Amino acid sequence: MKLDSLPSKAQLVEAAQTLKPWVHNTPVVTSSYLDELSGASLFFKCEQLQRMGAFKMRGAINAIQTLSPEQKARGVVTHSSGNFGQAVALSAKLMGLKADVVMPLGTPKVKRDAVLNYGARVTDCDPNLAAREAATHLIIEKTGATPLHPSNALPVILGNATACMELLSEVPDLDGVVSPVGGGGLLAGTGLAAFHFGQNCHCWGAEPSTVDDAYRSMISGQIETNQRANTVADGLKTNLGSINFPIIQSTVSGIFLVDESEIVAAMRLMWERTKMIIEPSSAVVMAAVLKNPNTFKGQKLGLILSGGNVDLSALPF
Amino acid sequence: MKLDSLPSKAQLVEAAQTLKPWVHNTPVVTSSYLDELSGASLFFKCEQLQRMGAFKMRGAINAIQTLSPEQKARGVVTHSSGNFGQAVALSAKLMGLKADVVMPLGTPKVKRDAVLNYGARVTDCDPNLAAREAATHLIIEKTGATPLHPSNALPVILGNATACMELLSEVPDLDGVVSPVGGGGLLAGTGLAAFHFGQNCHCWGAEPSTVDDAYRSMISGQIETNQRANTVADGLKTNLGSINFPIIQSTVSGIFLVDESEIVAAMRLMWERTKMIIEPSSAVVMAAVLKNPNTFKGQKLGLILSGGNVDLSALPF
Repeated sequence: MKLDSLPSKAQLVEAAQTLKPWVHNTPVVTSSYLDELSGASLFFKCEQLQRMGAFKMRGAINAIQTLSPEQKARGVVTHSSGNFGQAVALSAKLMGLKADVVMPLGTPKVKRDAVLNYGARVTDCDPNLAAREAATHLIIEKTGATPLHPSNALPVILGNATACMELLSEVPDLDGVVSPVGGGGLLAGTGLAAFHFGQNCHCWGAEPSTVDDAYRSMISGQIETNQRANTVADGLKTNLGSINFPIIQSTVSGIFLVDESEIVAAMRLMWERTKMIIEPSSAVVMAAVLKNPNTFKGQKLGLILSGGNVDLSALPF
Repeated sequence: MKLDSLPSKAQLVEAAQTLKPWVHNTPVVTSSYLDELSGASLFFKCEQLQRMGAFKMRGAINAIQTLSPEQKARGVVTHSSGNFGQAVALSAKLMGLKADVVMPLGTPKVKRDAVLNYGARVTDCDPNLAAREAATHLIIEKTGATPLHPSNALPVILGNATACMELLSEVPDLDGVVSPVGGGGLLAGTGLAAFHFGQNCHCWGAEPSTVDDAYRSMISGQIETNQRANTVADGLKTNLGSINFPIIQSTVSGIFLVDESEIVAAMRLMWERTKMIIEPSSAVVMAAVLKNPNTFKGQKLGLILSGGNVDLSALPF
């Protein structure tokens, strides 16, 4: 994608205005201990303190706000292994819409319960993309609900971008920002924000090495898939999409892979040192920074902590 | 203790000035979900985000600052099941003093490791008061170090008071403030701050029912002890002292008891909903508020979250 055909700065500003009444401007936290350990100056954007505990609220609200009154009346539907389902459920509740959420079996109970608590209807399905899509289509046929994709839709990407926009408005001179990459919606949004609002701010992705599809996609130039999707970072199992991948190609400088043990160690380190509960999908970012000291040494670095929705009954340590 | 013989407002202000360069003015956090659940407006004073992860830093620094140069040269010693040991170790490191910390066997490993990381010398002892005091006296004989008591000393109480002073400066019209009570140093400090700086602000204590010595002491009018000290709230096993008890009698309106299962449930609730890591000794406060809705309904209530130093290898859930 040519840089001048990227979603514009004005579109990002519009998304930020749309979201302002609905989401928290989450705090940016620092830690002198982790600065010393990493050799960089780290600025953590705390989306685990966002409403419903994750950045996904931003994309969900922005996507719902673009619907017509007729579409709103018929409700919305999504399939999600967790946080986006919660985000759609809560957004729909706030705006008085009906919401259906298709959730794969094996989703952390805390996430499933939260969707139910927000008043959405949950449909269980087998934990693979085909089953998720089939269940979603069945609901669309029955109700006429509008499907919301968790990551591969422009309104979602623009909404997600607002997290990094807030971070850059607080720390304008970041040398770089690191975001987790799963479906690609957060990384694409972060890349857009860094491109339009950074002062030469690089955007980096961090990905579990067991689901390295984004890493391989950047090398091959086409969307790659994973044979298996085994990672403790349950939010990062999905593949890139046709809308976010070109944005990622244009705005992201590179993707770092981290092993499972490195993710768990980084998560534990963050819990112990910052007293903040972040989920494994967020810990990949800290793991990537610790694994690549030569890349980040001496830099001012933003880290997007994407969420804090952890099943406390099934901790990896 | 007559109210006019309590430590004065000026003494509290002096302690706050002494501490200012050394401690964080920790954030005050709210949660609409927990407000709804409790029927009150809750303001959490986040001392788990204090340096070394607990309020104890306040008392330790203030106590060390009152020493003479000769005393400072000979170093300090304390016995502690955890957070105060860490606080003395870090305070001594910051001020260039030697520190010895006597720690009972069974102390969470994360707390013992932290003391060592701050450069203090650790002496292990049996987990009872007599053994702790004997080991401490041995060190004093050898080194001439000044003993610092974790809770029963005026400089420590005045230092601890500054947490509630900060809270009241941010939310001046609190109807009440709830603090955990173990050795009594935090509760006495909180009571003093509420008395001098609140606008008719009641101070309440929260205590595990398995170590209900403070509750019984308030009824009998003398310092009671516990036959056993079994509670998940490992920071609250100690007894009140001769210096803090009279202050507590004069400034505290009552003490609420909570059961072990209520402490664990409150801790889990806080972790899941606020994404903040608090230790069981802090969770007693939330447990007490949830257990007594009739007392607190409709009130603006401060809750002192005392610390966040948890052994992640040994979580109670």
